[in-house]
Amino acid sequence: MKSPGQEMYEFAERLWPIPRSITGSGIRETLALIKEHLPSLEIIEVPSGTQVFDWIVPQEWRIEEARIIGPDGETVLDFRENNLHVVGYSTAVDEIMDLSDLQEHLYSDPEMPEAVPYITSYYQERWGFCMSHRQRESLQEGEYHVIIRSELFDGHLTYGELIIPGKRVEEILLSTYICHPSLANNELSGPVVQTYLSKWLGTLSEREYTYRIVFIPETIGSITYLSRNLEEMKERVRAGFNVTCVGDDRAHSFLPSRRGDTLADRIAVHVLGHMHPDYVAYSYLNRGSDERQYCSPGVDLPVCSVMRSKYCEYPEYHTSLDNLDLISPAGLLGGYEVLRKCIECLEHNVYPSVTTPCEPQLGKRGLYPTLSTKDSAFRVSVMKDLLAWSDGEHSLLEIAEIIHKPMWELFDLVDTLVEHDVLAIR
Amino acid sequence: MKSPGQEMYEFAERLWPIPRSITGSGIRETLALIKEHLPSLEIIEVPSGTQVFDWIVPQEWRIEEARIIGPDGETVLDFRENNLHVVGYSTAVDEIMDLSDLQEHLYSDPEMPEAVPYITSYYQERWGFCMSHRQRESLQEGEYHVIIRSELFDGHLTYGELIIPGKRVEEILLSTYICHPSLANNELSGPVVQTYLSKWLGTLSEREYTYRIVFIPETIGSITYLSRNLEEMKERVRAGFNVTCVGDDRAHSFLPSRRGDTLADRIAVHVLGHMHPDYVAYSYLNRGSDERQYCSPGVDLPVCSVMRSKYCEYPEYHTSLDNLDLISPAGLLGGYEVLRKCIECLEHNVYPSVTTPCEPQLGKRGLYPTLSTKDSAFRVSVMKDLLAWSDGEHSLLEIAEIIHKPMWELFDLVDTLVEHDVLAIR
Amino acid sequence: MKSPGQEMYEFAERLWPIPRSITGSGIRETLALIKEHLPSLEIIEVPSGTQVFDWIVPQEWRIEEARIIGPDGETVLDFRENNLHVVGYSTAVDEIMDLSDLQEHLYSDPEMPEAVPYITSYYQERWGFCMSHRQRESLQEGEYHVIIRSELFDGHLTYGELIIPGKRVEEILLSTYICHPSLANNELSGPVVQTYLSKWLGTLSEREYTYRIVFIPETIGSITYLSRNLEEMKERVRAGFNVTCVGDDRAHSFLPSRRGDTLADRIAVHVLGHMHPDYVAYSYLNRGSDERQYCSPGVDLPVCSVMRSKYCEYPEYHTSLDNLDLISPAGLLGGYEVLRKCIECLEHNVYPSVTTPCEPQLGKRGLYPTLSTKDSAFRVSVMKDLLAWSDGEHSLLEIAEIIHKPMWELFDLVDTLVEHDVLAIR
Repeated sequence: MKSPGQEMYEFAERLWPIPRSITGSGIRETLALIKEHLPSLEIIEVPSGTQVFDWIVPQEWRIEEARIIGPDGETVLDFRENNLHVVGYSTAVDEIMDLSDLQEHLYSDPEMPEAVPYITSYYQERWGFCMSHRQRESLQEGEYHVIIRSELFDGHLTYGELIIPGKRVEEILLSTYICHPSLANNELSGPVVQTYLSKWLGTLSEREYTYRIVFIPETIGSITYLSRNLEEMKERVRAGFNVTCVGDDRAHSFLPSRRGDTLADRIAVHVLGHMHPDYVAYSYLNRGSDERQYCSPGVDLPVCSVMRSKYCEYPEYHTSLDNLDLISPAGLLGGYEVLRKCIECLEHNVYPSVTTPCEPQLGKRGLYPTLSTKDSAFRVSVMKDLLAWSDGEHSLLEIAEIIHKPMWELFDLVDTLVEHDVLAIR
Repeated sequence: MKSPGQEMYEFAERLWPIPRSITGSGIRETLALIKEHLPSLEIIEVPSGTQVFDWIVPQEWRIEEARIIGPDGETVLDFRENNLHVVGYSTAVDEIMDLSDLQEHLYSDPEMPEAVPYITSYYQERWGFCMSHRQRESLQEGEYHVIIRSELFDGHLTYGELIIPGKRVEEILLSTYICHPSLANNELSGPVVQTYLSKWLGTLSEREYTYRIVFIPETIGSITYLSRNLEEMKERVRAGFNVTCVGDDRAHSFLPSRRGDTLADRIAVHVLGHMHPDYVAYSYLNRGSDERQYCSPGVDLPVCSVMRSKYCEYPEYHTSLDNLDLISPAGLLGGYEVLRKCIECLEHNVYPSVTTPCEPQLGKRGLYPTLSTKDSAFRVSVMKDLLAWSDGEHSLLEIAEIIHKPMWELFDLVDTLVEHDVLAIR
Repeated sequence: MKSPGQEMYEFAERLWPIPRSITGSGIRETLALIKEHLPSLEIIEVPSGTQVFDWIVPQEWRIEEARIIGPDGETVLDFRENNLHVVGYSTAVDEIMDLSDLQEHLYSDPEMPEAVPYITSYYQERWGFCMSHRQRESLQEGEYHVIIRSELFDGHLTYGELIIPGKRVEEILLSTYICHPSLANNELSGPVVQTYLSKWLGTLSEREYTYRIVFIPETIGSITYLSRNLEEMKERVRAGFNVTCVGDDRAHSFLPSRRGDTLADRIAVHVLGHMHPDYVAYSYLNRGSDERQYCSPGVDLPVCSVMRSKYCEYPEYHTSLDNLDLISPAGLLGGYEVLRKCIECLEHNVYPSVTTPCEPQLGKRGLYPTLSTKDSAFRVSVMKDLLAWSDGEHSLLEIAEIIHKPMWELFDLVDTLVEHDVLAIR
């Protein structure tokens, strides 16, 4: 049997070559593959031109060919080899031009001469090509034939939504984005890990919370989604995670919500603090993904990001070097496990209260050594610490923080004490 | 005239040999000796079998003999020599057995081979003997005659209660425990110091607070006491101290209430911070005495512990080495003085407010130098700092903290300023 | 054209020789010179004997001559040479006496033998002379003729008040004191800087706040002023500054209000933190000027002090060495600029809120680069940080603190975003 990390990695490999953008067939193909894992995933199409808060859903982009043919008639660059080669949302072009004119339409990064940068121009019409700086410098003077067969047309913005019901109407939000073309840590890791988190959630016999799980294009997708669901989400969402950059194995990191102290933040800090105490803690000032929408004034949802190497913070970010070699089964599994632990902690975050004033008598319930020795007083210290703080005012998360234990070491203990009528939970 | 430390030490010597447990004649004898000092002490008897919250008052234990006679007919161990030698609440036995069978009933501590450990088994019927590990290792193979003449019978749990009335119905709680046999720092020091604090309180011409002072067996005693007085105490108790481990002279220490910021905590931290800035500050996670009941959910009284070397934290703890050599007149006096200072601070913790907007004119009242020189501005700085914060919102404790002075340096000043109509207090 | 620092310095030079005290003609002459700059300044006279809270307005002091003639008939000391030579509020005397009797009326400072100390005796009748310790030690034995022609009589306490109206009835208070004789940092710098701040405020086309600007004698002046205006000020004053010790160039420093976290404090700490991060932060325990009245219980106005070298904290304080050499154009300008920046920040401390949920689309308004590259995301980070926190709950000060920028870097940006309907302010 494959390890979950290996399964996720192979799913990333399947999704890799699809040419995604914020709209179009790449998104639809991607969602179709995700729906193979999550049959209840609903695919929603929002027409171009729809007003979504301060924005308008853009035209759909269809790209069929993007090539540069050199002075010698050889193809210098073809986006079929790497879909980063064309600037996202490039308009059509079929021209012959001097290298010097072409240069204005070329993008490369002299500081990373081997890497093809990832460039888009969604909201201003433009065309362009991206290539490694090394290749750019090797271009000969002469006439170049540039061909982009693309179309911007009134179509749709597409996203996927999955609701997994729980005992409560209150919700946990998982959100990831599916608009990046062939990029791996940022961002195939997010859709892949979120797909497998959703599968796991579906296997649970019951859930406390309802799960709202969305696969959207970044920025315009979260704005569109919020414009259609804001009031309901403000009422229901108790915690959320922007699932992004969860695929490499170099770091664990955290970016808080704007408020910084929501339930999601506190759970994430607790989990990371115990699982990966060397995690990197960013500030909301370092934000850069859909938390910009989820946490914006007027929206203000409790959404944070629990990541591996964060976007903008690793050298391969937004270049062709953020590829399948950068992520790994172990990296994806590490990202998955922290998020899953966060969800488990949310599910178990009860408010326990002892059923009697003073300490309950644990001995008569077989929960306590009957012989008092110098040592025995310490053996049951975790149980007694849990009871000492089970006043109905402190959540299990707060108790775990006070007594310096990971929450998950208390789950069974809470169950045992509830069975013995020592604790009541709400 | 004897020093108070010496008096307390001699009282500890008188109490030393009495074989105490959580019930029985040892408790009654101990209370009788305390009552010699505190004639108003009321002795309360609670019948065995009484339900007290989640617990039941246990049977009373009477112990008359506990001996081991060795293969050669010599008495190996006799609890009359040291009442730690018998496991507390041992049932009766009169058997001859092999050393190997006897071993299952012997308790010793290999890490402290000279010390007899203190062991009890209140809630499971058992018999056993405690001895030094050195002695245990010297036992010869052969037949041993073990004799315990003891009885568990429906009797009473006994405790003492003293109410010293004050101007207010609001109360300060002092609580100590009298269930430990021949142990000195933990725990003859508590009853001894609490007796002398009570005597001192009785000598005061008046008291702001009413004092509720209890001498109880640990755990079951505080549970029993709370089960009979909880509602009244929740209404009245403003601060309380669990008086324990106040006899040696190696350290001063503090264990907060569960809440950690009650009036009792803040007063204790203030007093220790000024009197003994090198005191050891423990967490409520290090608790282990009756604060476990007083601060439990549903009880939640503002009770902390102001100690010398804390239980569990010194090598002689709960062994025969916690004896009269471990405590001293100076040690007891040091414990007494900190607690007394805490009480004095509570008694003086008024809310002062100045009687005029702007600074009062101190000069016309003879409270201020009339010639303004470069230095004179600083002479009366404490008085002016006190006045600057006397806004009716800050207690004297809070003012003392803000101006970095011990509260007691302000007591006379407050009186003077009240006399001169510059301050009003509530 | 003169620099403002030079102008202020020259104004200090004009004010320098006037023999000021807490009442009398020196105050009136000083106010007359200030009124040349501020024609709307109103001069208020409060009769001696008026009850002002716990105090009584003292008699007015007129001083015409103060001399000591030595045994040889030579004038040893004449207050016309330095008005510090006579103890403030000295009563009249015309006597011949031995040096030993004279000594009881002489004041000097052995630790600063070249300096004449500044001494007053407002509330106890006395006469005396101040001289350098060096001079005092050179006095020969013999008969001295001491002459003080002064008068204490029922007159007035005089102060100046200027109200500069703003859009709001809510006020900013500026207060400085004009009772010190020939002393420079403490205290001609305050009246000089406050005069120029007032002139600048008058040149503004509009002001958010109304400005209450007072020139008073220290202590009795602020008490008198408060006794006449307290209720109105408690209702209206939102922030205030005691303008004192703003003339030398050795330090910037800050003394908070009693509460410590008022708007005035937070603005001052923000401004100093960005303009002079090495400023000296004092505690309210180091207070010593009119904040003692403005922040007293029952008054409790949000008044702090933003200073250069603080009174009591530099060696020349309250001596003849605190003279025009100690202050400088640059020193005065530095003090002026920090206070002016504080006022600018108060004027601009709006509560911005974005006009849409989610991020506004900056691109369509020409506020954002249209091509998304690896770098472009960071270019507009300040604008986006400002927007991210513009939730209507955070003031611009709070936002600036959160995003680690000086407020003043945001003023234009707020204006631009308001113009583009992206922000609304209140």
